[in-house]
Amino acid sequence: MNTARTRLLAVIGDPIEHSMSPLIHGAALAHARLDFAYVAFRVQDAAAAIEAMRRLGIRGYSVTIPHKESVVSHLDRLDASVERCRSCNTVVNDDGFLAGYSTDGPGAVMALRNAGCDPRGLDALIVGSGGAARAIAFALLDASVRSLRFRAVEIDQAALLARDLDAARPGIVSALEPDAHERAQLLVNASPIGMHPAQDAMPVPLDWLRKDLAVFDVVYNPLTTKLVAAARERGCLTIDGVGMFAEQAALQFELFTGEKAPRDVMRRVVRDALARAEAR
Amino acid sequence: MNTARTRLLAVIGDPIEHSMSPLIHGAALAHARLDFAYVAFRVQDAAAAIEAMRRLGIRGYSVTIPHKESVVSHLDRLDASVERCRSCNTVVNDDGFLAGYSTDGPGAVMALRNAGCDPRGLDALIVGSGGAARAIAFALLDASVRSLRFRAVEIDQAALLARDLDAARPGIVSALEPDAHERAQLLVNASPIGMHPAQDAMPVPLDWLRKDLAVFDVVYNPLTTKLVAAARERGCLTIDGVGMFAEQAALQFELFTGEKAPRDVMRRVVRDALARAEAR
Repeated sequence: MNTARTRLLAVIGDPIEHSMSPLIHGAALAHARLDFAYVAFRVQDAAAAIEAMRRLGIRGYSVTIPHKESVVSHLDRLDASVERCRSCNTVVNDDGFLAGYSTDGPGAVMALRNAGCDPRGLDALIVGSGGAARAIAFALLDASVRSLRFRAVEIDQAALLARDLDAARPGIVSALEPDAHERAQLLVNASPIGMHPAQDAMPVPLDWLRKDLAVFDVVYNPLTTKLVAAARERGCLTIDGVGMFAEQAALQFELFTGEKAPRDVMRRVVRDALARAEAR
Repeated sequence: MNTARTRLLAVIGDPIEHSMSPLIHGAALAHARLDFAYVAFRVQDAAAAIEAMRRLGIRGYSVTIPHKESVVSHLDRLDASVERCRSCNTVVNDDGFLAGYSTDGPGAVMALRNAGCDPRGLDALIVGSGGAARAIAFALLDASVRSLRFRAVEIDQAALLARDLDAARPGIVSALEPDAHERAQLLVNASPIGMHPAQDAMPVPLDWLRKDLAVFDVVYNPLTTKLVAAARERGCLTIDGVGMFAEQAALQFELFTGEKAPRDVMRRVVRDALARAEAR
């Protein structure tokens, strides 16, 4: 039960009514018996939402589409994770001083490691060039991949991303390379290809899925994407999107509360909710 | 557990950390199984809090000190209860259209009726001339008291209040009258006299407490004020402040949710919380 001392957390975005953040954070807060409430705000203006956070003393925001970029210019301090990918999915309010973080990239790398795939020294191929691809690419750079290649429809966006990555650590990245899949050891689908309701689409040709390729799909809706199912069939190590979603939320939880996140609880509640949704 | 569809309610004020509103509303919402969360916001600027409500889509505010007056000019529609007493303790947000209500006065009259004291036709004497006195006085006027008298330290404030009441319904009110207590049938303490930590103070002389006087104290901290204890001893019908606190919250609950408030639950949770606080 909330009291007058309960602190508020929220996810802001638009649309927001299908967000699983209240569920995953609510379950984690309840498990840890912390005095926070977590809700969702459908918000059109990121600047106004940040002003509201200051005025009402809201402790933390998870930030989602379409505000991850626009929120950045209204904060008092940007973590390196935000500076690099110009995207912010987490705002923490310390008595009116607002700090922005991005936990998407670190969450992706943690999900890989949890599954037994350390990106260090690997040749990685990322499908996509949008916000998720950018966040994951910088985190993979931090995790010391050997090389980073892209497969993307938006050629200009991919080139820009490659340039930014190259400026951060020269010599690792090239944007587009026709045969990159031949030597890739880690394939990351950071595009929405294969997401419900277009779950029959494949982000890469089937014959790219060699047995020794680790395949990570950020898409978690459906729970088992066509890419993950096909990769499993071929004996690949597969990592689905639930792990990343849970890890980015766990990192947010730790920034909001200062407490260790109950990761098992968080993974379970998301997986159960998605399974229930698919069963309907 | 909250979801992305859970709607937010909050009490705004400063200080706020001892507010019982999250407790009473939280218990009522849980009992009624309604998908709302209720928290407290310590807010210095009422205008900014209202702007935040619009931007975040917060469904309702309970408004407390010091914002009950300042909030009024920022709303889109004022209920008659607000127009008259220039004070608002409830804001309801219908898709960005904000309506203000005052449930303090109606809550006081409901608490009286619950206790078996219908104000109709009674000669009433109110101690105090502040916001609570104003709200209760107008509600007693609506409830057709025969006469209304005041005992107040702030003579000018009381005269102004009497003038406003007289404009609303001529001939019922006079501000100050030395012997008003002799024919009073209902005594209302709407002042903070007797409130913790000055619980030994009495708002009226002991010899005013005749057996046939109904005595209503808005103070609920302590649970049994010196006034209520003395009146009980003399055989008076007594009504303590918990009833009014619960009723004003129940009326808010109905405005916020459109559902009937679980009044028994609300009264019990407040009484239990106050009893626990006193036991410490």
